[in-house]
Amino acid sequence: MNAWIVAVGSELLTPFRVDTNSLAITERLNTIGCEIRFKAVVGDDVDALADVLKRGIGAVDLIICTGGLGPTEDDITRDALARVLDVPMDLDEAIAEELKRRFERRGMVMQAINRRQAMVPRGAVVLENSRGTAPGLWIEREGTGIALLPGPPREMKPMLEALVVDRLAPKTSGAGLFRRVLKITGQPESEVDARAQPIYGRWLTAPVPIATTILAVMGQIELHLSASAKNKADADEALDAAVSELAQHLGPMVYSSDGRGLEVVIGDLLRAKHFSIAVAESCSGGLLSSRLTDVPGSSDYFDRGAVCYSNAAKIDWLGVPEALIAAHGAVSEPVARAMADGMRTRAGSDVAIGITGIAGPGGGTPEKPVGTVSIAVLTPNGDKIRTFQFLGGRDMVKFQSAQAAMNMLRLLLLDA
Amino acid sequence: MNAWIVAVGSELLTPFRVDTNSLAITERLNTIGCEIRFKAVVGDDVDALADVLKRGIGAVDLIICTGGLGPTEDDITRDALARVLDVPMDLDEAIAEELKRRFERRGMVMQAINRRQAMVPRGAVVLENSRGTAPGLWIEREGTGIALLPGPPREMKPMLEALVVDRLAPKTSGAGLFRRVLKITGQPESEVDARAQPIYGRWLTAPVPIATTILAVMGQIELHLSASAKNKADADEALDAAVSELAQHLGPMVYSSDGRGLEVVIGDLLRAKHFSIAVAESCSGGLLSSRLTDVPGSSDYFDRGAVCYSNAAKIDWLGVPEALIAAHGAVSEPVARAMADGMRTRAGSDVAIGITGIAGPGGGTPEKPVGTVSIAVLTPNGDKIRTFQFLGGRDMVKFQSAQAAMNMLRLLLLDA
Repeated sequence: MNAWIVAVGSELLTPFRVDTNSLAITERLNTIGCEIRFKAVVGDDVDALADVLKRGIGAVDLIICTGGLGPTEDDITRDALARVLDVPMDLDEAIAEELKRRFERRGMVMQAINRRQAMVPRGAVVLENSRGTAPGLWIEREGTGIALLPGPPREMKPMLEALVVDRLAPKTSGAGLFRRVLKITGQPESEVDARAQPIYGRWLTAPVPIATTILAVMGQIELHLSASAKNKADADEALDAAVSELAQHLGPMVYSSDGRGLEVVIGDLLRAKHFSIAVAESCSGGLLSSRLTDVPGSSDYFDRGAVCYSNAAKIDWLGVPEALIAAHGAVSEPVARAMADGMRTRAGSDVAIGITGIAGPGGGTPEKPVGTVSIAVLTPNGDKIRTFQFLGGRDMVKFQSAQAAMNMLRLLLLDA
Repeated sequence: MNAWIVAVGSELLTPFRVDTNSLAITERLNTIGCEIRFKAVVGDDVDALADVLKRGIGAVDLIICTGGLGPTEDDITRDALARVLDVPMDLDEAIAEELKRRFERRGMVMQAINRRQAMVPRGAVVLENSRGTAPGLWIEREGTGIALLPGPPREMKPMLEALVVDRLAPKTSGAGLFRRVLKITGQPESEVDARAQPIYGRWLTAPVPIATTILAVMGQIELHLSASAKNKADADEALDAAVSELAQHLGPMVYSSDGRGLEVVIGDLLRAKHFSIAVAESCSGGLLSSRLTDVPGSSDYFDRGAVCYSNAAKIDWLGVPEALIAAHGAVSEPVARAMADGMRTRAGSDVAIGITGIAGPGGGTPEKPVGTVSIAVLTPNGDKIRTFQFLGGRDMVKFQSAQAAMNMLRLLLLDA
């Protein structure tokens, strides 16, 4: 099965909004073996939408439209469909009644304009909207199924799910694209790809072919494995073997193959070992604390964090000796270590991290340019201290500092 | 002038990537009065791209394609254009020579496949790529200008800029869409719109019409004003007047009309008053410190931050009396105040903030459900203590806590 996705709405032709519904739709359709061939965005323009629909009907198995189902004159999706199919629009009394009840439940009177939402191109089936007023529509013509779904994601998603389960999946063989993601940090994309390519290159011609996409995002590499299989069981078997082979070959640089983020992986390691953690940050400005505490239940192991921007804070709060700062500079491995040491003593925690560096854009020197960051990680399994030279702007330096600190901690905890 | 934007690349038809180039292209084209009528995403498929190009040529003033200009067989944009125009492809010796030199400068030998990037559909003009190997192309046919730009944003953007300045802007009258953004926090979207609509509703029919879009993002409302004007001077005059009228009507809920984020606005207020700040966070987990220190130069006023997740940290680090926690609970206005007080004493700062709350998903009680957050802001101009009931998941509660604390501080500093 193959599909087109058409997003309707003039706001999607401005610089302010991007169509993200199509990503969720693609992901769900891929799981039933339906491939996306084309995506389009049209404004609130009956002619433009009718033109796209006309080209797709008879040429593609499925067209999913999102948006333009509201009650106003701008909401033109129903009209465009009726025009292309050359059918009249009928008022669906059941929808009109339900709309009226919804308004009454909120103590409001339904305005006449809302009856537009009850108009149905003749022959179309109504898809229930469990979370809003705009019902969806489904119709088949010339071998093409056409679904009109609402634009708001929270209304669109349950309707898509019902459409897939009730109407689309039963027509498919169970074949589909099934996925896994390996997450890696601390290595450049080129290095990861050079090591991974000889492995994943072979999978394209395997009995269950697996395509691999490498995505580099800030401070992190993701390997997306997509298996095209006759059913989920075959896909799971092939993907589990592939993930295991690749993870073994790449070694500990892979921090997750089950969707967990780095902060969740750290949390799970700390919890398993019954270790508490306290962190002292300078250049990362609280980002490490914030990421560690993004994890539900992190209060089980996260004790406290300090953001010591001023030297005074490092000295009087963490007990970093003033002479140490004078001798090595605030950005140095001895100071990173003293920050972590001071933090561990004060918090009585098992693990402590100290980060000091130059986030920029100011503050760099020829010896210690912007992006110079020293990180100390102290654990009951041993310590690690390193100085990094990160590239990029202030945000990037902050993010990479937190990322590198978590990765150093992960490797120390794994070693134990 | 009106335009289509076509993004080329099979990766843009997966769930992993969305076409964001079109947003930057839209923003720049709008400034020369060029409106986007249609956007499409096609895979690495000559037929699909040729089909879209064929429909656009003669029907629209401008088609901008991005992507598919690399050296591999998958890079089909040049081929699709040549097919639609029914012209042969010629090898451009100057491009081939420049490509060869680029490889040599990096100590590499150019592979034969890279010569694909030097193929030019006959009649097309080459657009220089200052940041990569793939040159762009420009050709006009049947009143439609067609630009092929590379996919990577850092290569695409300078080429787009040159295209606009050299070829597109000279053909336009100087008319365009010019924009301003008003940022608001601490108010629900419905309230902002109810107050703003009577003002901005009138602008649509003004001599220089201004369209207003209201965008609600997490903890924040943005009002985007777009003036359609004959030239920038007219637009500036109308927009300045509109911004000033709206800002005056909405009052201090508007924190920025010049693009600054809330943390930048706070930083500017603190710097103007020569106030230093220290913050003590519990449920926001360091996010407030991290956002305050996202601002370049924040070390001028940000002294330190504490993330006190455990009660022990609140007691022995900030000096919150244990009896106070026992009497009121860790999440309470007296404890928020004691955290801020303790922080101010220890840091010797002018301003201090204390935040304590329940980020969830666990930890809620009937009296204090998830999302309950008490915030104390102490300044030389007076103090403010409030308890909020935020909705949403853990991320949302963290974000709104930091946002509300900054907004309370902003209002206190404005009052002075």
